[in-house]
Amino acid sequence: MKQTYFTPGPAELYPTIYQHLQTAMDEQLGSISHRSQKFRDIYKFTDEQLRTLLNVPETHGIFFTGSASEVWERILFNCVEHESFHLVNGSFSKKFYDYANALHKYAHVFEKPFGEGFDANEIEVPEYAELICLTHNETSSGVQTRTQDIHKIKRKYAKKLVVVDMVSSAPYPDLDYSLVDSAFFSVQKAFGMPAGLGVWIASQTCLEKAERLQKYDSMTVGAHHTLPTLWSHYKTFETPATPNVLFIYLLGKIAEDLNKIGIDTIRKQTEEKARMLYKFLDDSADYTPFVQQERHRSQTVIVANTQKPSADVISNAKQAGMVVGTGYGKFKDSQIRIANFPATSFVQVEALIKQLSK
Amino acid sequence: MKQTYFTPGPAELYPTIYQHLQTAMDEQLGSISHRSQKFRDIYKFTDEQLRTLLNVPETHGIFFTGSASEVWERILFNCVEHESFHLVNGSFSKKFYDYANALHKYAHVFEKPFGEGFDANEIEVPEYAELICLTHNETSSGVQTRTQDIHKIKRKYAKKLVVVDMVSSAPYPDLDYSLVDSAFFSVQKAFGMPAGLGVWIASQTCLEKAERLQKYDSMTVGAHHTLPTLWSHYKTFETPATPNVLFIYLLGKIAEDLNKIGIDTIRKQTEEKARMLYKFLDDSADYTPFVQQERHRSQTVIVANTQKPSADVISNAKQAGMVVGTGYGKFKDSQIRIANFPATSFVQVEALIKQLSK
Repeated sequence: MKQTYFTPGPAELYPTIYQHLQTAMDEQLGSISHRSQKFRDIYKFTDEQLRTLLNVPETHGIFFTGSASEVWERILFNCVEHESFHLVNGSFSKKFYDYANALHKYAHVFEKPFGEGFDANEIEVPEYAELICLTHNETSSGVQTRTQDIHKIKRKYAKKLVVVDMVSSAPYPDLDYSLVDSAFFSVQKAFGMPAGLGVWIASQTCLEKAERLQKYDSMTVGAHHTLPTLWSHYKTFETPATPNVLFIYLLGKIAEDLNKIGIDTIRKQTEEKARMLYKFLDDSADYTPFVQQERHRSQTVIVANTQKPSADVISNAKQAGMVVGTGYGKFKDSQIRIANFPATSFVQVEALIKQLSK
Repeated sequence: MKQTYFTPGPAELYPTIYQHLQTAMDEQLGSISHRSQKFRDIYKFTDEQLRTLLNVPETHGIFFTGSASEVWERILFNCVEHESFHLVNGSFSKKFYDYANALHKYAHVFEKPFGEGFDANEIEVPEYAELICLTHNETSSGVQTRTQDIHKIKRKYAKKLVVVDMVSSAPYPDLDYSLVDSAFFSVQKAFGMPAGLGVWIASQTCLEKAERLQKYDSMTVGAHHTLPTLWSHYKTFETPATPNVLFIYLLGKIAEDLNKIGIDTIRKQTEEKARMLYKFLDDSADYTPFVQQERHRSQTVIVANTQKPSADVISNAKQAGMVVGTGYGKFKDSQIRIANFPATSFVQVEALIKQLSK
């Protein structure tokens, strides 16, 4: 039986992907050279569609990696000489912090318990931190940082670089890139694609920092996918190494489909579906929203405590053709996670609510 | 018009890929969790098929990255404390060497002109080099290193690690993994897949080296796709980050198809098609094989000097439905490159020869 995936990534595929994949195979895009005009046109198209969708200005480049996790490493290599600062409140923001330690950066951390969120006015960034690492949507706990708080932090610390992990929320967050130096996501979440491609948005300020670090005898910014090599190839819409051409094509086509609907509509639909889900959780005797503070509740990954063992809830939903995510880590047995991405419609969310209320 | 791609990667897709892709989409493999038993079964299946095809022993693990270029960086990070040694005779072996310099390793090099190959008896590895970096098939020039020479080098320098770049030849080279510590390839060459997945084979000895380096205060082995994290997840057929599940599935199915034919047959067919192509080049007044020494001629990427401007040859072939690769770098206008991968049949190679002889 065909299932509807409400898992927070890999997730339900965007409905148009099947036809785009067919076109790609018909046009033999899996065989074209990444040094051909045909590829450059694909990169340019995807770049344009993402710029429109996410409102990315000319000051920022858009690059492709193997995954968003890879970007954690790349931004730390390229934009941190000594010190980074991390807001940690779940498994993925924690991994970003772990990557900094693995690269022997001096990583500062402000940590909150799983399920709690951050507000700008409580953030004190250490004096010598060069990069402020924020997670817009913590996939493990369903906590979101409001974009206005992200912007406030940058306004307060204008000379520091700000990078936003928006892996499981893009294109939802309305980031102002005059106040965000870098952001990144992966395609298997809200873009409804199979996993295998990371997207890295970075500003010229990030590039300049990387170029400066590269000149130091004591520093390496890595060898693969360094910001200077990505950027120099980007000028002609090429990539330093052979990229995932097929997925770059699919991403461009899906971004185009989302642009046809319009990002404002996408955001409103996301909020309306999230409202339906949270209302159901609030009213139900069998579930409660995990995140207490409404302002910190994720619009794209909704986490609920379950009265029954979550395994039963998940198994019942599966029999009805719906796949719901398990809780993360130690919450595996007592929580479920519901992705609220553009690929799932109002009708499908209603069907899920009906199933969960049985 | 549907073209036959004789380009050395991205290349002609393996004929069965369309049906495997259809199955993958029907089974919604783009949506499954990489922490599910279904994914672990896919990884295990692909691992088994590659082990059979390439004769990889239990001492070696098989890991997935975003590309083979990424593996250049990973092996250098994980297996070199101070010094590496590189045989360089073209653009890709040179890039491997460049990566070592970018990571601030002390990189020794033995370089030969473009189009020339290496024999074991002329190789002197510097005393403190820890990793010997060999390129089985130099994609830019069509030069191959014989596997018996690779094995001889390891026998002479048994305590050093040997890594083999077989990006544009695997599964053709019959490597003896008791004499090869690590090898890697990407899927858009002889496996006939779209680009977007690198495969890294590495031994327990490589892992032990990485674990040793990780303990040094002064060393980082990177943060993403380190050998210790890859290996610890590999024990249960998982990956540290979300991998390209779809392509791992496709690779397993294509490896299975190749196993059904049998690796000995695949290798014989490769050699027979290469023989046809080189014979044609030798006999033709319009072309000459670029690589002089027969023992160094690649079986998988055949490079020819053209009498006519290569652009004309390529354009004529394209009109006849065949895409041939350009020469690399400064040989762009005077050479063509012809991929000889399992995806192209005897009949297709004959048709190409007929076209080129027009």
